[in-house]
Amino acid sequence: MASQAAGYNVAVVGATGAVGREFLRIAEARDFPIKSLRLLASARSAGSRLRFRGEYLQVEETGDDSFRGIDLAFISATTEASRHYALIAVAAGAVAIDDSSAFRMDPNVPLVVPEVNAGDLRRDRRLVAIPNCSTTPLVMALAPLHRANPLTRVVVSTYQSVSGTGTAAMQELTNQTKQALDGGHPESEVYPHQIAFNLLAQIDDFLDNGYTKEEWKMVQETRKIMHEPELPVSSTCVRVPVYVCHSEAVHAEFRDPITPERVRELLSVQPGVELDEPGRPESWHHPVQAAGQDAVYVSRIRRDVSHPSSVAFWLVSDNLRKGAALNAIQIAESMAERDLF
Amino acid sequence: MASQAAGYNVAVVGATGAVGREFLRIAEARDFPIKSLRLLASARSAGSRLRFRGEYLQVEETGDDSFRGIDLAFISATTEASRHYALIAVAAGAVAIDDSSAFRMDPNVPLVVPEVNAGDLRRDRRLVAIPNCSTTPLVMALAPLHRANPLTRVVVSTYQSVSGTGTAAMQELTNQTKQALDGGHPESEVYPHQIAFNLLAQIDDFLDNGYTKEEWKMVQETRKIMHEPELPVSSTCVRVPVYVCHSEAVHAEFRDPITPERVRELLSVQPGVELDEPGRPESWHHPVQAAGQDAVYVSRIRRDVSHPSSVAFWLVSDNLRKGAALNAIQIAESMAERDLF
Repeated sequence: MASQAAGYNVAVVGATGAVGREFLRIAEARDFPIKSLRLLASARSAGSRLRFRGEYLQVEETGDDSFRGIDLAFISATTEASRHYALIAVAAGAVAIDDSSAFRMDPNVPLVVPEVNAGDLRRDRRLVAIPNCSTTPLVMALAPLHRANPLTRVVVSTYQSVSGTGTAAMQELTNQTKQALDGGHPESEVYPHQIAFNLLAQIDDFLDNGYTKEEWKMVQETRKIMHEPELPVSSTCVRVPVYVCHSEAVHAEFRDPITPERVRELLSVQPGVELDEPGRPESWHHPVQAAGQDAVYVSRIRRDVSHPSSVAFWLVSDNLRKGAALNAIQIAESMAERDLF
Repeated sequence: MASQAAGYNVAVVGATGAVGREFLRIAEARDFPIKSLRLLASARSAGSRLRFRGEYLQVEETGDDSFRGIDLAFISATTEASRHYALIAVAAGAVAIDDSSAFRMDPNVPLVVPEVNAGDLRRDRRLVAIPNCSTTPLVMALAPLHRANPLTRVVVSTYQSVSGTGTAAMQELTNQTKQALDGGHPESEVYPHQIAFNLLAQIDDFLDNGYTKEEWKMVQETRKIMHEPELPVSSTCVRVPVYVCHSEAVHAEFRDPITPERVRELLSVQPGVELDEPGRPESWHHPVQAAGQDAVYVSRIRRDVSHPSSVAFWLVSDNLRKGAALNAIQIAESMAERDLF
């Protein structure tokens, strides 16, 4: 980070959101070199204060002139906010790292998980997208396997936490849970049906092909990040009454036969992936354990008995961290290391 | 039911359990012809009273002489209880319908979902097993499709409710949820880890091949019920913080190409299966809605984009009803209809 002796001037759009707050915690814990920090949010949240490195900083309303002098803008608000402010931030000279789906499939925008495709980062690509929080852990586990033995098909079912929707959804889960325990009828505002003690088999809107946009993001983003535009991928995305961490049941087919032992060997050297204890299948991971952690946890690796060259496994990852804020900071660190700012 | 003018002498082993209580509710609602009813349970529950047809009946401790004069014994307790009492009931002249895994894979014991393989019921097979509560809804959806176009592979991920474990697990979910909302540290007795706001990627013990017994039951029972001993099936079984209903994300591959429209057509005439509204993908089903209902609800039928002759769908079913007690009563009704008692 030679060019920024004292660090970067950083703006966080959506600072008061679940991902924005996690960004601040992670940046502080990793000692990310921040010279100045501008916390931005909608008018509704402007004026509130957030703590960073022992100081309380006031949140300002995001505006078109919020990005003057900014080196790095992290945007995790609404897709509309991303559409508007990402380009303004880049025009103002910043690198913008965007958490929305607005630009992910734009061929001019790198979609990056640094452990997988840091090579897609370039000095002349000032707008960088981070994948959906369900895609990131999936490609973290698939990429090292694919390099060793080409994937021919991926089928995944997700178990996604409410923090993926945001803080209002986390509050709705709490409120509805209390209402249900009190014998009342839980009221839904964020979700179409009760989420407390329930499952919702729809995340985002439906497409004409019967998939939801969330499911389609997993298909398309996985292909883009792995540079395999035709990779057969199918997913079912389900919201579960869990606060933090997305979990996934993955079935991966390969061109050639592959053993669970080989999968374990390949994943054991993949940065950012943690495995269960060898020989102790009961040491599988779960959301409460993985929340607040950086790793993508992979367990229950086994031969898929329904196909001769397929394996099945279970993964759990903090959707606010590796699924969002941590991945964004790692992108910034990766760009800094290679002097791409 | 010509041979039993006034109905059957019925014994329910495990009457105070989640499935046992549901058996009583369903038998009453369906007006199942019961001449006398004997409620049986462990010593711990003996002496309690349960309501049936407006009367309170006292629960007795199950013993070796509990089945004298009994025509039909329904057993839903522990596997050990099944192993012991099922054969005693049969020896005493009863038809025993058993909810445990003790006899399901025994070649001499029919494993039956009446809408699928009622033909396996025989007068000289006095012990009948009902499938695991995650298998039954799966074969309800797969069987009519398989008859039209042979299945070549099934991959399923489950989202199973705590009532599948029993009433103690339902109470643990309630207790832990309250503890978690109060900011405390939930205590686990039934499950190895917290289930409140969490997921458990293990149901039953592990086998050497990395699958759990629950997952392996789905593989083997599906094959037996569908008379396809080699059918490639793989599953991941996950416990979710939901009280009632098991849900499943299913990917089914067929020998020949098949459209979602054809799947809908085939399932629309399958007794016991209910579909979402045509053209309204957002009318998918969820556990809170399906709890207390008899049907297996199938929604989100779509072409699986990862395979040329595969479809994906979502199913939800009350694990205490079609997954257990209702299926048992339907077996008894089916045997009565065909004079097999």
